[in-house]
Amino acid sequence: MSKIPENSVGIVEPQALHFDEALTLVSGKVIEQYDIVYETYGTLNGAADNAVLICHALSADHHAAGYHNEDDSKPGWWDICIGPGKPVDTNRFFVVSPSNLGHCSGSTGPRSIDPKTGKAFGPDFPMLTVSDWVNYQKRLAEQLGIKQWAAVAGGSLGGMQAMQWAIQFPDMVRHSIVIASAPKLSAQNIAFNAVARQAIMSDPEFYDGRYYDHDTVPSSGLKVARMLGHITYLSDDAMGDKFGRELKNDQLNYDYGAEFQVESYLRYQGESFAGRFDANTYLLMTKALDYFDPADVHGGNLATVFETVKAKFFLASFTTDWRFSPERSREIVRALTDAKCDVSYLEFDSNHGHDAFLVKNDNYTGAFRAYMQNIEVSE
Amino acid sequence: MSKIPENSVGIVEPQALHFDEALTLVSGKVIEQYDIVYETYGTLNGAADNAVLICHALSADHHAAGYHNEDDSKPGWWDICIGPGKPVDTNRFFVVSPSNLGHCSGSTGPRSIDPKTGKAFGPDFPMLTVSDWVNYQKRLAEQLGIKQWAAVAGGSLGGMQAMQWAIQFPDMVRHSIVIASAPKLSAQNIAFNAVARQAIMSDPEFYDGRYYDHDTVPSSGLKVARMLGHITYLSDDAMGDKFGRELKNDQLNYDYGAEFQVESYLRYQGESFAGRFDANTYLLMTKALDYFDPADVHGGNLATVFETVKAKFFLASFTTDWRFSPERSREIVRALTDAKCDVSYLEFDSNHGHDAFLVKNDNYTGAFRAYMQNIEVSE
Repeated sequence: MSKIPENSVGIVEPQALHFDEALTLVSGKVIEQYDIVYETYGTLNGAADNAVLICHALSADHHAAGYHNEDDSKPGWWDICIGPGKPVDTNRFFVVSPSNLGHCSGSTGPRSIDPKTGKAFGPDFPMLTVSDWVNYQKRLAEQLGIKQWAAVAGGSLGGMQAMQWAIQFPDMVRHSIVIASAPKLSAQNIAFNAVARQAIMSDPEFYDGRYYDHDTVPSSGLKVARMLGHITYLSDDAMGDKFGRELKNDQLNYDYGAEFQVESYLRYQGESFAGRFDANTYLLMTKALDYFDPADVHGGNLATVFETVKAKFFLASFTTDWRFSPERSREIVRALTDAKCDVSYLEFDSNHGHDAFLVKNDNYTGAFRAYMQNIEVSE
Repeated sequence: MSKIPENSVGIVEPQALHFDEALTLVSGKVIEQYDIVYETYGTLNGAADNAVLICHALSADHHAAGYHNEDDSKPGWWDICIGPGKPVDTNRFFVVSPSNLGHCSGSTGPRSIDPKTGKAFGPDFPMLTVSDWVNYQKRLAEQLGIKQWAAVAGGSLGGMQAMQWAIQFPDMVRHSIVIASAPKLSAQNIAFNAVARQAIMSDPEFYDGRYYDHDTVPSSGLKVARMLGHITYLSDDAMGDKFGRELKNDQLNYDYGAEFQVESYLRYQGESFAGRFDANTYLLMTKALDYFDPADVHGGNLATVFETVKAKFFLASFTTDWRFSPERSREIVRALTDAKCDVSYLEFDSNHGHDAFLVKNDNYTGAFRAYMQNIEVSE
């Protein structure tokens, strides 16, 4: 008997499409050809008006829901929100979840082979922005016969993409779901990213990003970067509740082994991540975060940016999130209100910090479900 | 004409004392002999009851006030608080400022020569605790003929020493000045330290702490550690006000150079620190912070610890300090109150985060001065 829960989308298989049409990026660089790896859940209806695009954050990918096989121990990264009867109800919606350009789990990225050289792109892979991903995701929509998304949804960096979609292609988005996100990074946010990149780039195994050619990986640097990231994803309170000052062993050893549980946990998380994620991708993702600032072209006035937006918005934030605190969501809400956009905003009590958008919480998923149920789609 | 301001202690010269009496540490390890480098400002009175001990934090040292020569561009680290007419008024007090055991600026530490081997101690230098430093500072007090401190004062890790003095030698401290400190590190505090250590220890130039023998330094790791530390010393607001999203050049370059001012600033701070500080000392200091938890022996009850304390306390915290927030000082104040100790506590508005204790602020220095003026000393 299957261990897969009934309210799951079940076993899913990633799909891939190859694109030969060059994509010009914000930086001016061009990607000549690329693959998009994606998963879909549910069925596109005849009117093609029930499609929901899921945008992932820094370290996630196209595997947003369901399982890859019967023995899969963990479902996709947003399985709490995608499935039959869940907020993004696959009985009603056709869900499209691509992994982004520059990623390391299928879609074309730094460790893909550059057809021009026959070697991995590495540091020659061009810098990306949220706006570039929206253009890239639009190509996928066109291939799948989707002229308008019922909704574009994401948390964190994914929420930035959901926002950017509504700005960039106002006619293609009916609802924008922006969770635990921000209108742009603060100096402190950028600073944390800068430290993470410094750790990776100063690892001697990094070889200026050409580590594939040296048959190595900058795992020490990536481990440090991930350990640091992890601190910013959790709340101070959650870390306190989970670990406090609990020791790994019965007593202090007065050495540099992991003495406290929290050290041991972070080291494990860092090592596990360094074993599966690509360092060049990590760099690209943090830079895309740094660059995101849709109001910049309007002298910092976000309300002006939203004046041409047609989508309705659902925003959510979490009390203990200090990476993108509720105040950052409120900045977006104020700008939307000033621009007379239709916006629903909810702030949820949660102890889980930034990661709260990935954690089951009946208030959050209940409100998200209620919002999604009101989105009209053809039978 | 001298550039040295009138309210300065003027030009000062570090002094050194050699100690042959072995010091047994909390870890059980023993330091057979050691040097203490220190500075003094003001004059010890006949009754020897006007001595104030200054305890430094992670990266500071014995040079707390004044200048080392006429051309010195910067005074000691707490010059805003120590000098004629300043809070620790050198017209009244005899100020003693040692650098701690394990440090890299004079007192015996990892880069000192181990007489047993003729080589630098490196990783063989034993782990230290705040309690060990108090014992070490007591040896200095004895040599200088000081039986009781009028006050022991410090900020951050220095405040922990001021607290520990009052606990460990209740008859030797009349006033304990604890600024921007905490009764113990939180899981998040420990986590940040763990990442900093990971960055240093995974630098291939670290050589398990024996980098002196390899004629190198783990400067990349130390740079990352310091960049990270710096983020936790500044407030989110202060970083926002100082740097915002300002670019280093006129436009984005879409590369991995420092694009934002805050990146450039952090890199500079990290490099400058890595050029002057010793990595093994950095490791030791972060561990001493981790270990500090005077209530642990009493099942976490800090009030019980304070029951035998005789000193009066002055505590101060700063609104935007998120490394040791005002709430952490309030924990100490509540325990002192429960133990019926005499305590003054002030919370100051400041935009400078944890670093606020080092920054001129009339409210803070004014209150500190008023408290110190009330300390009675013989003529």
